[in-house]
Amino acid sequence: MSDLVNHIRQVIRDVNDFPKPGIVFKDITPVLADPDLCVSVAHELKEYWIHHEVDGVIGIESRGFIFGMQMAQQLGVPFIPVRKAGKLPYRTIRHAYELEYGSAEMEIHIDAVAEGHNIVIHDDLLATGGTAVAAAELVEKSGGHVAGFSFLVELESLNGRLKVQNYCGNIHSIIHY
Amino acid sequence: MSDLVNHIRQVIRDVNDFPKPGIVFKDITPVLADPDLCVSVAHELKEYWIHHEVDGVIGIESRGFIFGMQMAQQLGVPFIPVRKAGKLPYRTIRHAYELEYGSAEMEIHIDAVAEGHNIVIHDDLLATGGTAVAAAELVEKSGGHVAGFSFLVELESLNGRLKVQNYCGNIHSIIHY
Repeated sequence: MSDLVNHIRQVIRDVNDFPKPGIVFKDITPVLADPDLCVSVAHELKEYWIHHEVDGVIGIESRGFIFGMQMAQQLGVPFIPVRKAGKLPYRTIRHAYELEYGSAEMEIHIDAVAEGHNIVIHDDLLATGGTAVAAAELVEKSGGHVAGFSFLVELESLNGRLKVQNYCGNIHSIIHY
Repeated sequence: MSDLVNHIRQVIRDVNDFPKPGIVFKDITPVLADPDLCVSVAHELKEYWIHHEVDGVIGIESRGFIFGMQMAQQLGVPFIPVRKAGKLPYRTIRHAYELEYGSAEMEIHIDAVAEGHNIVIHDDLLATGGTAVAAAELVEKSGGHVAGFSFLVELESLNGRLKVQNYCGNIHSIIHY
């Protein structure tokens, strides 16, 4: 295991019973408190995609904005926010998806993804994959192509990878639990 | 007016009747679609604070995460998320504030701001100042010191500056409307 992976694992904080009883949440906030570590994380996230064709990076609201913007800047491509319904000011495309109880909707601006552009979808965490799949649907509805998925942390036991690989098998996660 | 200010003004999009009828919303999303412009914005936001004592940068959820993280990285200090109630996983300090109809609460992790640290509060937009004041209250409740406020856009007619300067008169906004 690389020094970076070891370092991040030491810094990530387990929070019991969040967001509900029985869940052990992987809290990345202590990573954000270490500026040198953040530089290394941003570098590692970018390095994976530097040799792929990438025309834009989506950050999923709201923690996906943090490193998603860094990736977009370092790759020299547009940063594209995907947000919960009602938050984006201009005209949007929506996608509804199922949650454990009920459903939710994500949106993208109609002019955010150009026809045929290759888009990487970034979030801090891959869990069940619901929001990442919603973002992928939004890319395809926009006429774009999902170039892959980028996560800081992947929770393998929740099998989100099985869902997102229906859109693209190019999946990069720094940390796996 | 500088070239950068002119450029950003040309790129920011007016969206009528968002979030409600009669409001003309200043949409910064087109700025995010221009990676070179984003580099210049992040540089300008950072330059103002480089000669001040800054121990951390708060980004207010969720658009404040986008350039707030860039600022923190370029200043070499921790990035501190302030979020809507119930979103931060670890133990928090809360502050309730009034909205036009009803109220809202913002939170910060209890260990996010060290005693006596000087914290810059960043958001993309200063409007009435409600959330920026909430973030300032959270800094003070944490034992920290508000070193100042940073915005991409300031809507002068809404007088948010009058509210936030009760915490610190050091206020930097790139664009004024």
